[in-house]
Amino acid sequence: MGEFDLIETYFRWDNDSDPTGDKNGVVTGIGDDAAVLQLEPNQQLVTSIDTLISGVHFPENTPAEAVGHKALAVNLSDLAAMGAKAKWFTLALTLPGTDHAWLKAFSSGLKKLANETSVSLVGGDTTRGPLAISIQVMGTVENNLSLLRSGAKPDDKIFVTGTPGDAAVGLASIQGDLASEGVEFASEDKAICEARLNYPTPRLEESEVIKQYATSCIDVSDGLLQDLGHILKKSQVSAVINPSEFPLSDSLKKLPKDKAIQYALNGGDDYELLFTVPSYKCEAFMQAVSEKLTTHITMIGEVISQPKSEKQEIGVILDPNGMNLRGNGYNHFNDDIRDENSRD
Amino acid sequence: MGEFDLIETYFRWDNDSDPTGDKNGVVTGIGDDAAVLQLEPNQQLVTSIDTLISGVHFPENTPAEAVGHKALAVNLSDLAAMGAKAKWFTLALTLPGTDHAWLKAFSSGLKKLANETSVSLVGGDTTRGPLAISIQVMGTVENNLSLLRSGAKPDDKIFVTGTPGDAAVGLASIQGDLASEGVEFASEDKAICEARLNYPTPRLEESEVIKQYATSCIDVSDGLLQDLGHILKKSQVSAVINPSEFPLSDSLKKLPKDKAIQYALNGGDDYELLFTVPSYKCEAFMQAVSEKLTTHITMIGEVISQPKSEKQEIGVILDPNGMNLRGNGYNHFNDDIRDENSRD
Repeated sequence: MGEFDLIETYFRWDNDSDPTGDKNGVVTGIGDDAAVLQLEPNQQLVTSIDTLISGVHFPENTPAEAVGHKALAVNLSDLAAMGAKAKWFTLALTLPGTDHAWLKAFSSGLKKLANETSVSLVGGDTTRGPLAISIQVMGTVENNLSLLRSGAKPDDKIFVTGTPGDAAVGLASIQGDLASEGVEFASEDKAICEARLNYPTPRLEESEVIKQYATSCIDVSDGLLQDLGHILKKSQVSAVINPSEFPLSDSLKKLPKDKAIQYALNGGDDYELLFTVPSYKCEAFMQAVSEKLTTHITMIGEVISQPKSEKQEIGVILDPNGMNLRGNGYNHFNDDIRDENSRD
Repeated sequence: MGEFDLIETYFRWDNDSDPTGDKNGVVTGIGDDAAVLQLEPNQQLVTSIDTLISGVHFPENTPAEAVGHKALAVNLSDLAAMGAKAKWFTLALTLPGTDHAWLKAFSSGLKKLANETSVSLVGGDTTRGPLAISIQVMGTVENNLSLLRSGAKPDDKIFVTGTPGDAAVGLASIQGDLASEGVEFASEDKAICEARLNYPTPRLEESEVIKQYATSCIDVSDGLLQDLGHILKKSQVSAVINPSEFPLSDSLKKLPKDKAIQYALNGGDDYELLFTVPSYKCEAFMQAVSEKLTTHITMIGEVISQPKSEKQEIGVILDPNGMNLRGNGYNHFNDDIRDENSRD
């Protein structure tokens, strides 16, 4: 089966697009040298690309359907973090061979999430090589209303969606790390955490509400502390967070508390939104959340001014008792994560 | 060196973009969850993604600078084939490790072509794994003026830019195939053909002229015959081409003529534009070419009606003597190219 047939068989979900129509803004979809897409007036294009490599971004035995879901979800999460509406994506798929069962399941996971989030696949490329999936998502935002990392101000409150740490516990469960650390964990809780790892939820719906109140936003992909660090650095501020009020899932509450909090602070792959809201808007924001969303959203700390002392780095994160919780999330080019985490 | 540092060191070529500015339409570039890009009014977005894998899309010993050039060039070529103006690109880079000499040279090849073609790198992703480069390019076209594969009409003339076949001869030279076939080829000609393979020229400038006259267009990536087949299938027409009038480079003219023409017809990786122009516009088109371009552009055949007989397939390509020259170019998922080429 050739490249063209692969795309036709597994990734052409719609009929040929009508050049005069406007199906989700797709003027010309898959099947020409490039896709042609129509933005609405007064909108800007928002775009991001992420690659998933087998054995690096997901365990090698991850079900193909989950790989399809996750490859799109992590990219949609970037659009959610920008306050953008997701519209289109392209797929560059590198496959070691033509495994039809794998392709069918992968395509099915991808298609299900694409349909749920109303995004259209507008271009594809398949090549032979070690399994890798690059997806570029494109969305739109009203002119100059994108949510950047750089807008956090002192006295803003810091919020996070969902319950970070679940995905990292899921990975630890799959890799046998929980067992080797002597942690007992019920199979039901393992299944819940592994599902959070394999089927992350892009917070697009939440983003629609958050963007109306937030001053800055990022999605938690590398670990909450590390990603909060990006906001702080870009915004030239520091922050205080209170781990004792941290949102933990029912599953994580069954772990020793210090271990659960370490997972919540440093674990990657959650794809929750981490954002700041000015103090005076917090009441209205929480009211809007309770009216429009079912997702748990928790205030975890506040932004403070950049420390005056030049010796102190921007973005050092302290808990109210002064214990330094600074740490690094997962860094793809850094093998010494454990050492770095314990260096303070 | 972490992922963030890699991007900072090798792929952040501009200063932080000014959110209120409009540098090439880049509102927010590298450094946030996604890029924010501004299209001009009455323009559509044109986008394409292509992945290059070491050992599949370029020989493993290809200089890193050439890899950087080619990865961007093949994508820009897709925009040229659509009649689009290239504006932005994102890069998903998978590296086996952090080889600074390689990264410096790769980045340099990429940057040089990006500067020459005025396209901005707006997003990046680096991951660890076997060497692979996915680039997604984005450009703009005036509303509904993109050049599709589907517009060819009977009596249109078929044209091609440059001298197809050079890149395939360059590959044959590198792989030792020329020598093993007993073909003598001067080292100067080898160097010329290898340069065409490693440093293809995206025909963006030519596209600006062609788009004003052409009814259909494609770039020659998989081989001229195979790519012409895509135009014919999409346009529901057939074609007659005359290989004896085929444009051959001075280097290819030194090969036995039948061999040179086989390379020109079936060799991939040229990234020349193949397009159709209505007969009545040909004179004006050639006039415009001679005034505005230095690139060789040759008429190689004409479009004819779809055969009436249902037994004949659409898009069968005949030379004027009735010899069937149908063949397939390179197909990444097909190991039986030789068999397919000879099945007629």
